Amino acid sequence: MYNIGIDLGGTNIAAGIVDENGQILIKHSVPTYKERPTDEIVADMASLAKKLIAESGLNITEFSSVGIGCPGTIDSKSGEVVYSNNIPMEHYPMAQRFKEHLNLPVIIDNDANCAALGEYTVNGNEAKVFILITLGTGVGSGVIINGKIFHGFNGAAAELGHITLVSGGKKCTCGKEGCLESYASATALIEQTKVAMSANNDSIMHEIAKNEGEVSGRTAFDAAKQGDNTAIEVVNNYARYLADGLVSIENAFQPEVIAIGGGISKESEYLLKPVREYVQNNGFNKYMKKTEIVAAKLFNDAGIIGAAML
Amino acid sequence: MYNIGIDLGGTNIAAGIVDENGQILIKHSVPTYKERPTDEIVADMASLAKKLIAESGLNITEFSSVGIGCPGTIDSKSGEVVYSNNIPMEHYPMAQRFKEHLNLPVIIDNDANCAALGEYTVNGNEAKVFILITLGTGVGSGVIINGKIFHGFNGAAAELGHITLVSGGKKCTCGKEGCLESYASATALIEQTKVAMSANNDSIMHEIAKNEGEVSGRTAFDAAKQGDNTAIEVVNNYARYLADGLVSIENAFQPEVIAIGGGISKESEYLLKPVREYVQNNGFNKYMKKTEIVAAKLFNDAGIIGAAML
Repeated sequence: MYNIGIDLGGTNIAAGIVDENGQILIKHSVPTYKERPTDEIVADMASLAKKLIAESGLNITEFSSVGIGCPGTIDSKSGEVVYSNNIPMEHYPMAQRFKEHLNLPVIIDNDANCAALGEYTVNGNEAKVFILITLGTGVGSGVIINGKIFHGFNGAAAELGHITLVSGGKKCTCGKEGCLESYASATALIEQTKVAMSANNDSIMHEIAKNEGEVSGRTAFDAAKQGDNTAIEVVNNYARYLADGLVSIENAFQPEVIAIGGGISKESEYLLKPVREYVQNNGFNKYMKKTEIVAAKLFNDAGIIGAAML
Repeated sequence: MYNIGIDLGGTNIAAGIVDENGQILIKHSVPTYKERPTDEIVADMASLAKKLIAESGLNITEFSSVGIGCPGTIDSKSGEVVYSNNIPMEHYPMAQRFKEHLNLPVIIDNDANCAALGEYTVNGNEAKVFILITLGTGVGSGVIINGKIFHGFNGAAAELGHITLVSGGKKCTCGKEGCLESYASATALIEQTKVAMSANNDSIMHEIAKNEGEVSGRTAFDAAKQGDNTAIEVVNNYARYLADGLVSIENAFQPEVIAIGGGISKESEYLLKPVREYVQNNGFNKYMKKTEIVAAKLFNDAGIIGAAML
């Protein structure tokens, strides 16, 4: 049997046909155009799914379900998007509306949860507790316990970007002060880079940013690798923030694996090595097996695969 | 059927016979004398259990098991205390040694986990996710998911006293900087009280402490209730630290209930009301059912009951 996984993003709708082992047979994407009525977006999601089914040559009876990863707060039981800020939705009956176009069982969940389930399915090695942390515009996360998404009592658990890192610290987009996201997202790194650049006119980060046309999450890493002291300090501070958040997550969940995804994770060992060292040295558990910290491998496909595995 | 629950503390060994509903039939305690060889402590634990059985008039066949709550890092599978600092133990085969004295199945777990399970059993109302936070010398905690202690992959999860509250902040006894425990334990509150007293000679906290012979976790609360501004500030700051930690816990686990135990929880609504307000206003989940924050009810019996329910 096969499942269809749909990853509803602010920019694109990505969808694929996924087999029982989490392998994508075929996939496609179309623009979301998120400002239009949600019903139109859902119609396009369903068209995409139908196109995939037609192309695959498979019969509709060979499909078990459609899984949809949506931004925002999701009520998986009712199939409703309770609230989403990114693609504006409020108590939107996503599963029901989708089913009006394509008569298969529809299961929806939060997009970060789906990405975690996708990464776990392909690279989780059956870890008892598996956590994906995605460093992007924000800090996304999903917690997989015994192969299932951990939802808490109300469906909204695993918002690890919003654990406190600095009590009374920087204001986060969520309204609270000092969230991990305000220090460890790509957005935060870019801001930290800009502050350091302003204070250090001789940093080669100015040249790098000029050549690339912007300050990005890579600017400080690229300059640090060339020995730029200002950039090295930016990277070290950033790694420390991230690591301090990961220690909290380790002490709370003792996951067998934490996978780090998102653009910044492409820095791979240059970032992960110091992070891993800090976590190893500062975790509360000094006497039992340790959490493994690895780079995520699936990138954009994680959302499709995870949605399909719902 | 009945179980025997034993709570091995640094000062006392407390034990009780507990029925299937978590009610204690009889209980007793003896001093631990923690400096002596652990084998002697275990012999006393077994004697206490035997005494309870004899007093109860029940037959040994009416008992299913003995549960033991131990300080430190526990390997429940092997029945071993991997490491304990409080009562010095390292790879100590607790379950096996106890069984040499009393031939019943023996299950061991961390004492804070047992307290959480005990509180959950009696006052948890079948919450899907239930967390006990104990504000004492340290900040203890246990996480109960679907009625079972959450252990993480290695048995050491739910050390919520050691999530980061202030990155790079005060050094914690665990070695890391900025742990919740360093700001929200009774020890931390006493320290915060003393600092405020030193800076404010006219605070009535001086008089209260003099009358009581010491600065305690109650000093600031007692003075605040009498309108002492310095004390009010101490209490407000303390409540904010605690609340900020609880928001992290809420955003990570979305527990149905967080119960607050330990001596400071006796301040009840005077502490819990502002804490609850902060958590309600700052939790990431603004659109789903909220975590309930309540005072724990069992105090010292939680450990016995939880151990018995293992």
